[in-house]
Amino acid sequence: MVRLLNYHGDMSTPGRTYQEYQSFRTELNEKILARGTTITKRFFTIDTKAYEPGAIDRKTKEMLGLSASMVLRCDDCIAYHIDQCILSGATDEELFEILDIALIVGGSIVIPHLRRAVEFIDQCRAHMEESADG
Amino acid sequence: MVRLLNYHGDMSTPGRTYQEYQSFRTELNEKILARGTTITKRFFTIDTKAYEPGAIDRKTKEMLGLSASMVLRCDDCIAYHIDQCILSGATDEELFEILDIALIVGGSIVIPHLRRAVEFIDQCRAHMEESADG
Amino acid sequence: MVRLLNYHGDMSTPGRTYQEYQSFRTELNEKILARGTTITKRFFTIDTKAYEPGAIDRKTKEMLGLSASMVLRCDDCIAYHIDQCILSGATDEELFEILDIALIVGGSIVIPHLRRAVEFIDQCRAHMEESADG
Amino acid sequence: MVRLLNYHGDMSTPGRTYQEYQSFRTELNEKILARGTTITKRFFTIDTKAYEPGAIDRKTKEMLGLSASMVLRCDDCIAYHIDQCILSGATDEELFEILDIALIVGGSIVIPHLRRAVEFIDQCRAHMEESADG
Amino acid sequence: MVRLLNYHGDMSTPGRTYQEYQSFRTELNEKILARGTTITKRFFTIDTKAYEPGAIDRKTKEMLGLSASMVLRCDDCIAYHIDQCILSGATDEELFEILDIALIVGGSIVIPHLRRAVEFIDQCRAHMEESADG
Amino acid sequence: MVRLLNYHGDMSTPGRTYQEYQSFRTELNEKILARGTTITKRFFTIDTKAYEPGAIDRKTKEMLGLSASMVLRCDDCIAYHIDQCILSGATDEELFEILDIALIVGGSIVIPHLRRAVEFIDQCRAHMEESADG
Repeated sequence: MVRLLNYHGDMSTPGRTYQEYQSFRTELNEKILARGTTITKRFFTIDTKAYEPGAIDRKTKEMLGLSASMVLRCDDCIAYHIDQCILSGATDEELFEILDIALIVGGSIVIPHLRRAVEFIDQCRAHMEESADG
Repeated sequence: MVRLLNYHGDMSTPGRTYQEYQSFRTELNEKILARGTTITKRFFTIDTKAYEPGAIDRKTKEMLGLSASMVLRCDDCIAYHIDQCILSGATDEELFEILDIALIVGGSIVIPHLRRAVEFIDQCRAHMEESADG
Repeated sequence: MVRLLNYHGDMSTPGRTYQEYQSFRTELNEKILARGTTITKRFFTIDTKAYEPGAIDRKTKEMLGLSASMVLRCDDCIAYHIDQCILSGATDEELFEILDIALIVGGSIVIPHLRRAVEFIDQCRAHMEESADG
Repeated sequence: MVRLLNYHGDMSTPGRTYQEYQSFRTELNEKILARGTTITKRFFTIDTKAYEPGAIDRKTKEMLGLSASMVLRCDDCIAYHIDQCILSGATDEELFEILDIALIVGGSIVIPHLRRAVEFIDQCRAHMEESADG
Repeated sequence: MVRLLNYHGDMSTPGRTYQEYQSFRTELNEKILARGTTITKRFFTIDTKAYEPGAIDRKTKEMLGLSASMVLRCDDCIAYHIDQCILSGATDEELFEILDIALIVGGSIVIPHLRRAVEFIDQCRAHMEESADG
Repeated sequence: MVRLLNYHGDMSTPGRTYQEYQSFRTELNEKILARGTTITKRFFTIDTKAYEPGAIDRKTKEMLGLSASMVLRCDDCIAYHIDQCILSGATDEELFEILDIALIVGGSIVIPHLRRAVEFIDQCRAHMEESADG
């Protein structure tokens, strides 16, 4: 029987670990890059380059990506940019002020994603402490 | 190991009870209100006030919230407003006519949410009968 | 020279009269119904039927259409439903409460449409008084 | 206790089989058609008719539905149209070029859906081989 | 006094000629390519490449772009892809069937764009006949 | 005859001066605040407060607002945040990198707004030089 075993790309899957989220993302991206067209590969390349430091530093660029992802209401994109913001040194105070602006711009329809974003911020912090302890 | 145990805010999580949905919502809202900024708290306050009866009665306001949530395709918001509509006395006939308008305005892209909305209406009704019996 | 003379379907065209808006809408709908496919014609028919009174009265259905149009940010649809709400007897107090809910659900991105909606409400009222006087 | 046992309409539910996806879809559609209004039923009818071959053949129409579903970011709709494209004879090369266009038009916010689309294409192919073998 | 003379990129500007639309588009694209970053330039390059014939022919790719632009409700993008579809040999019958699918997928919120699309199809045809006569 | 003289809130109106844009915005906001409900007024208040400097400085907050407005494709909101970014000291290099991220996140559907954004940046700069000269 064909099972849709891996068909769960978004962060709303309960009981998944932070590591599982990361490895699923990596695995599927590799699959896409292996089988995707030249167009897809080039898009992935400039998608990465757009967040490299330039006139604007990397942390601020990730914050811009987070604000855009919040109002477009994409959980996976939100999780990705929260992760990158934290890796770039964003504080919780900064993250909550980004969520504020996304909430005001995007309205109450953003709230369910705000709940999951807050939950994910805590998971990222916990994962980092664990890694540092490890 | 860090588990994303609570990272499942949306209604599409299978096997979750109506009570679990309500308690997750309450728990995360409390977390946001405890840690969120003044902006977030004020937004939550006016979000609540917007549905209080005025020139338009409460039930109709919840119906307006449901129609808006359907076309914006947010399952959690749909579930919330269905719940509030039913608590305000909306009948199934009224709910299905709201779904009609959302379907016509928003198109076939709304259908997956329509399926889940119909399913959730039944869960709400079942929960209420159970509570009344209890 | 080919001029795009009629290519201005939306309400944001400055200096257009209420009558011009109505006649453009009518003219183009007739063109679509004359040349469109059976699918298009059937869609237009059920689009009309969805707002006929049933378990929910006509005025409330138009209000649901207005709330949906506001959060989806379509000026022409907003103008159409404001017109229908007013023809169905909606008061300014009711209209402003619908705009409130749309603003809260959809966020500040809705504000430019809110400005134009308020402007259009005044135009509709002025047109009706003029017609009544005429 | 009321369990939300069936409340999982979208394709992102992990561990679900291709057959379960199809049977859930069928079951809920039957429920909607049994209890829904005349408006809903008529909409479902023209939704089916819109993809019947005309000036444009069926496969191309399903491809148009897939491109629209991708940019609107609806996993269930994406899964449905991938299924129909494959049943109409679309090759993987064609499917990946549709995903390309959706990625370019819709941007990186489409990527999580692209991952799940690629995964679903593989599940569809596996299901078909299994059925052919069976 | 600073006038926003050129600030009218969308097709809904009344009285603009087909030639003016094309020259505005060309002028601004040149401005962006002259001053934009490497990221922007690369995006424009792959945006062009995505519609080149591959497993799917050019006309069908433009049709996919039109269906995506219609449901995302972007008048300029719709005008661009209608133009390209017609240049690739699409008939009115084919164009109207694409509009059908967009209307069904995207709902009545698409109708104002449908009106403008029909108007633009006629302008394109008129422009081509004029050019052929010229 | 009732003319829709003021019904032109968005930046795409050709031939409008920067001053006219500002005065229209001010006039309509005053109208809304004079006649709007308490909910609307409170929303406008927190909308203003959300961009005040906190853990994140004002310029960065306006940049977050711009990135969100770009991907949601609202010309008036884009114009407003470009204006505020420039008043807060953002350079053209920074503005173009924000547009880059919006283009990558939101895709080619953002391009028409990108054209108008570039045009508006130039108008803002010209207006400021003129004011400084005056």
